[in-house]
Parts: sequence; structure tokens; C-alpha cells
Amino acid sequence: MTLQVNQQRLKSDIETLAAIGREPDHGIYRMAFSPGDVAGRDWFKQQLSDAGLEIYEDGAANIHGRLAWDETKASVMTGSHLDTVPGAGHLDGALGVLTGLECLRRIKEANIPLQRPLEVVAFSDEEGRFGGMLGSQAITGRLTPESIHKAIDLDGIRLTEAMQACGYDAMAALHARRQPDSIHAYVELHIEQGPILDQMGFSVGVVDAIAGLFKWDVSLIGTPNHAGTTPMHMRNDAFAGLAEFHTQIQRLLDENGSERSVATIGRVSLFPGAANVVPGRVDFSLEVRDTEQRVLDELQGVCRRALSAIARRRNLMFEFKVLSEIAPVKCSNGLVDQIKDVAETLKIPSLRMASGAAHDAQMLAGITRAAMVFVPSKDGRSHSAAEWTDMRDIEKGANVLLNTLVRLAGEGK
Amino acid sequence: MTLQVNQQRLKSDIETLAAIGREPDHGIYRMAFSPGDVAGRDWFKQQLSDAGLEIYEDGAANIHGRLAWDETKASVMTGSHLDTVPGAGHLDGALGVLTGLECLRRIKEANIPLQRPLEVVAFSDEEGRFGGMLGSQAITGRLTPESIHKAIDLDGIRLTEAMQACGYDAMAALHARRQPDSIHAYVELHIEQGPILDQMGFSVGVVDAIAGLFKWDVSLIGTPNHAGTTPMHMRNDAFAGLAEFHTQIQRLLDENGSERSVATIGRVSLFPGAANVVPGRVDFSLEVRDTEQRVLDELQGVCRRALSAIARRRNLMFEFKVLSEIAPVKCSNGLVDQIKDVAETLKIPSLRMASGAAHDAQMLAGITRAAMVFVPSKDGRSHSAAEWTDMRDIEKGANVLLNTLVRLAGEGK
Repeated sequence: MTLQVNQQRLKSDIETLAAIGREPDHGIYRMAFSPGDVAGRDWFKQQLSDAGLEIYEDGAANIHGRLAWDETKASVMTGSHLDTVPGAGHLDGALGVLTGLECLRRIKEANIPLQRPLEVVAFSDEEGRFGGMLGSQAITGRLTPESIHKAIDLDGIRLTEAMQACGYDAMAALHARRQPDSIHAYVELHIEQGPILDQMGFSVGVVDAIAGLFKWDVSLIGTPNHAGTTPMHMRNDAFAGLAEFHTQIQRLLDENGSERSVATIGRVSLFPGAANVVPGRVDFSLEVRDTEQRVLDELQGVCRRALSAIARRRNLMFEFKVLSEIAPVKCSNGLVDQIKDVAETLKIPSLRMASGAAHDAQMLAGITRAAMVFVPSKDGRSHSAAEWTDMRDIEKGANVLLNTLVRLAGEGK
Repeated sequence: MTLQVNQQRLKSDIETLAAIGREPDHGIYRMAFSPGDVAGRDWFKQQLSDAGLEIYEDGAANIHGRLAWDETKASVMTGSHLDTVPGAGHLDGALGVLTGLECLRRIKEANIPLQRPLEVVAFSDEEGRFGGMLGSQAITGRLTPESIHKAIDLDGIRLTEAMQACGYDAMAALHARRQPDSIHAYVELHIEQGPILDQMGFSVGVVDAIAGLFKWDVSLIGTPNHAGTTPMHMRNDAFAGLAEFHTQIQRLLDENGSERSVATIGRVSLFPGAANVVPGRVDFSLEVRDTEQRVLDELQGVCRRALSAIARRRNLMFEFKVLSEIAPVKCSNGLVDQIKDVAETLKIPSLRMASGAAHDAQMLAGITRAAMVFVPSKDGRSHSAAEWTDMRDIEKGANVLLNTLVRLAGEGK
């Protein structure tokens, strides 16, 4: 026997929350601990209350809605975040929280017998007004007094100040930490934020890994020269080095990466940057992602050697510094198989895939079995008011989540 | 019999003028009609006077130093400019004016019999505070009341105001126009501002053409996408199109250009320009130069087709607009041969070459026989305080100019 979510109720919740913090024609503004976020949080707590779920707010201001709570038993957790980037769409984060709410509501209504408590969590500041994944880092024990104290937004407002203005003591986030054995499993539903499901025609993706990355600041340094008086063969054109490297990237990934490897040069600055001067220097970003650390390590070496060789041959100087490195996260294989199996039972074709973007789930994966359910993003659009997912796909994803939670909550110790 | 310049006197003039408008460690500031320029002009007029040359200042504030003046006879003209870019070196422009002065001084001292008058001209605003080549455009009849009225510097100061502050009526520049038959020939000595003579070991270049150019503003437009969630084969990376085009440039020039063709991409802007977003759009400059209009026309077509093909294959939009087109200028073949012959007589090896930069000579070429003598720029450096030419090379170039002027002034009607 399988359960079904109440599609109309879920749709209505999505629409109601989407109106909170929305600025007409500019998208949604519910940045963490902003007035829009606070309004969204208050509304969500009211929904939990209306559904007869137990409400618990931890030290990191994560909102937990709990069913059949028993602190002696490891819970089955789902959730996502209510906060948004500025000018956001209506689904990123919100969909996971509202679907979790709907699942718990349906399970409660259907009086499903539960071996384990269920909780839906709205995590604080996933999107990064103060750095990102504040709530899921708190729960997984990754915060320090120093990291809380230093967190600051782009306007120079401290996390401690912003939380205090909302009635929270930021340092209490340290007490939000959960013991690993208090969480049986974590499953998060989220929009894909990429084009794969949409282009391949799947309604549901099951995430088996979250990509890690390395990000470099690279410089190639030649000689700025007069564009009129310097013959082609006497130039040290720094930009020519970058152009050559860019045309090698696909080959480098094909030869040394996996089918999940991506590399992006998204930022480029030429110096002096005038139409009539041969570029003497180019600074650019190089960001490479994969779901295997081994592959990322290999690609770091490959990119360094390719750039060195180009620089040597073109008589350029090559410098780089590592701006960030984030390790990939494996989801639980057992959990992924269970979700795939639930989808099959529901006759919903699903695609095993990676997440290229970061999610709270990657924090939870550090302390418990974790996996994600993706639904398609139309044209891959996200972080934009143009973000959109067909309600039929949302319903399928929600039913996969619902029946997965039922199975997990029915599992014995 | 050949004449020699007085090297010590020329060297002393160069050093004295270099001190006018110099800011220690920052180069020379004699932008047109600035206090530095006025001081340089005053000093130059004093030198003309000390040399016993007749001084004539035309309506465009061009300073003429004249020897054996006879307005019924076509004159032999040399010269260059005293004004500089901000932070300039000591030779660009100044060397041509001072060498011209030294040549007339020597010819006068040596009592060389002259069939024609000689004049050395310091042209106004060659470097472009108010657009460039003001003086040589005035003499060749290219100014209009409108162009004078509209000329404005980067600070919003009008040419008319700046000239008035120096005691000149800008509209009088219209009266500086010379009849073509009043100039027998024009020869300008200038530093190369490129690396060719320095790298090839020549002391003297003889310029047979001044390159023209076309300059485009190009856009390639794809789709901005999340760098983590968008697989390589689902991207519309605008920058990838530019990188591919850049790697084709040398081949396009080799196949369709001349050995003098150069192409430069000096300005590049990516949008949105973030490390974690696949570039959805790239705007860049494309500047192509050659000494043949036919070649420039060919290269315009070739670049358009190459960019169209890349855009079509990569599913990008391609747009461009022509920012400027400047026609190449041919020097007088007869004059070039005469200069080469003079150099040979002096046993100075010389290289026939093009000028990649613009000069007053290209204006003069529109109304009379014109050519240029180049001396090497160390490492091709110019428009910088690092600009430098060995005094032995300057002396050789000056002697070529001197004996060329003697020959030209000795020619009958």
C-alpha cells in the first residue's frame, strides 16, 4: 500500500509561502533573519501547529516539526531551508520544507504506525547571507564560537546582531548539535537547479553524491605591447594563453575526469584592457567540480601541468592560488537504493544522479545516512524568479519522499 | 659629400626638452595646451630664434621654423610634435622636432646652397588630448568649424577654451590650411614605438606605409548557467566561443592577411562574470591592422565568417558593430627610395617597413609626397617613461634625415 500527498494542499502552501517576501517583478527576498525570513518562519510555525505537529526551535533557530517524538529513538529527518537568495524563485529550499510538512501531515492523517519519530526541519541561513548552511552546520557540530562570532553579511552586519534582533542568541547555535545516533536517516527533496532531469524527461532524480570542487585564481603574465606596432610573432599575449587553455578544457576532462566532471572559467580580467594594447596579463577564475576526490586531485594536477606547458611555450608567467577546496560527499548507497525502490513501486521512473550544487544534505551526510530526491528545474533555471517546476513533477517527487519516510520510520532499531 | 648633425647639441636639446613637464618617477606631462606644453613650445621658439631661423605660428598653433623662406617656392618640410601623452617618455614626437631643428641649423651653418625653402614644424595636439593630429589635420585641410567646436578633452574642457587660455583662437586653425603645391615633400623622423628595428638590429627604418585598421565591438551571447549543475554538453558558454576564435586568429591572418597583418583582442568582459556561473555573454574588442585596404577588407569578411561559424556551431548569438575604420596610407615610393639611397651613401643599413602607429605623416601624405625615418625603440617600449633609444641610433637616423633634406632642398622645380 502506498500513500499519496494532498497535491492541492501542497500547491496552496507553495503559493502562500511564495507571497511572503516577494517584491513584484523582482522575485523573493527572504534572506536569513531578514523581515521576510522572519515572516516566512512565523507562517511555517503556524502551519506546523495547525497540523498538530510538535514545534521545536533549536539554538541555531532551526525549526523542527515533530511527529511521534521520542527522544530515546533515532528520528527520520527530512527538510530544507526557508531562507532565499535576493530575488529568488519560489521553490529553492521552500519546496523541501513544505513537502516535508505535507508528508508528516499525511502520515499523521493516515494514522500510519511508526517505529521511529519523524521530523521536518527548516534549516537556518542555507543560502549564505552569513556564510551558508548555518543550521545544518550547527546540527552536525561544525560551528565554533569563533565562526559564529566572525560571521558577517555583505553590509557588515554580524550574525550575532541579526539573530539578536530576531530574539535569538547566536552562541546558542553551539547547543543545536545532535548526536549522530539520534538521526536514523536524512532525506531532502530539492529542485535540481540544473537542466538534466528537464532535458532527459525524468520527473524524479535520486542523488547519490554531492560534487566537491576546487576554485583557483589564475594569472598568466606576458608583456603589454602596442597593438599596432608589435608584429604577431613578437607578442607575449597573455590572453592567447588563456584562450588556448580554454580550448583544452574539454579534452582534459574527457581524458582525466569522470562523466560528472565540469570546469568553468566564469571571471576574466585583462590588463591593461584597452582595444589597442596587447594584453600583458590576464587574471581568471578556474572552478572544477566532481563527485570523487580522486578525480578532483587528478584534475588539479592536470590543469596545473596544462597551464604550465602553455605558459612555458608562450613565454608567459603562470601563477595560481587555491581559493577554496570542498570535498565531495557520498550519499548512503543503501538509502539511495531504498528511494529508487520506492519510486519503482510507485511506477515513477527515476534517474540516479549527482548534485552539482551544495545542500544541507551534505552536512547531514557527515553524521548520518543521507540522500536527496530531485525534481526538475525548467531549463535548469534557479536563483531567479524564472525558477519553475511542473506541479505534476512536484507531486511525483513528494510521493517518493512520503513513501520513503514511511518505510524508514517503519524500520526497527 | 655628406653632412653630419652635431650629436652633442642634439643630445643636449633632447635632455633640456625632456626636463620640461617632467614629473619625477612619473614621466613627462606636456598634453596639448597644458602648462607643460606651453613651456615646451616657448623653449622651442627660443631655440629657433637662437638658430637664426624664421618663426611662423599658424592658426592651428603649429610652430614653423623656416630657412631660406620664399613663399613662391614649394618647401621641404620635416617635423613632428612636442605634445605628449600623460606620463610620456622623452622621445615620442620630441625627437622628430629636435632632429628637424638640428638639421636646419646644420644646413644653415654649412651654408648649403638651397633651391627650396626648408621648414621644421611642431604640430599641435598629435597625441589626442582633443582628438589627435589637430595641427597636421589643419595644414591638410581636414578640419571643419564643427570639428573644432566639438573637440573636448576627457575632463570636459573644450579645445576652444584651452586654446583661448593660451592666447589662440581655435577657429583660426581653419586658416592654417596649406595648398598642396606649397609643400615639395614631407619627411618625419620618429621612434618606431615597436620592437622590429631593436630585435632585428637595424639603426634606421624607412617607412613605406602607415597601417590602417578596423575596430569592432563584438558580442557572443549564450546562456548563463550554474557552474555546478550544468553538465559540459548542456552549456552555451559564450566565452568558449571567444576562446575558439582567438586560437583561430593566427591561421586567419596567415591564410588571408599579409605579413604585416596584426589582430588584437585587448578588451574582454564576461557576464555575469562570477566564478560559479557559466558565462552567458562575452563582449570584446577586435582590432585588425594592415597597410593594404584590400587586405583589411578581406580580413573583415574572414573574421565575420569565422565568428558566425563558431556562433552557429556553439548555438550562440553573434553581434558586432564597427567602432572605427581608418584607411592605410601609402608613402611616396620615390621618396622612400631616395631615403634608402641616402642611408646607403652613409653606409647605414636600413629596413623598409610599415608604421603600425598613426603619425602626422599620414595626414601630410594626403597632400604631398611623404615618408618617415624610424629609429629603434628599446624593447618596443613607448608611451611610457621607459621609452629609450641609443644615441648612436639617433645620430644615424638624424644624419639620414639631414642628408635627405639637403637632397630634397637641392631639387629643382
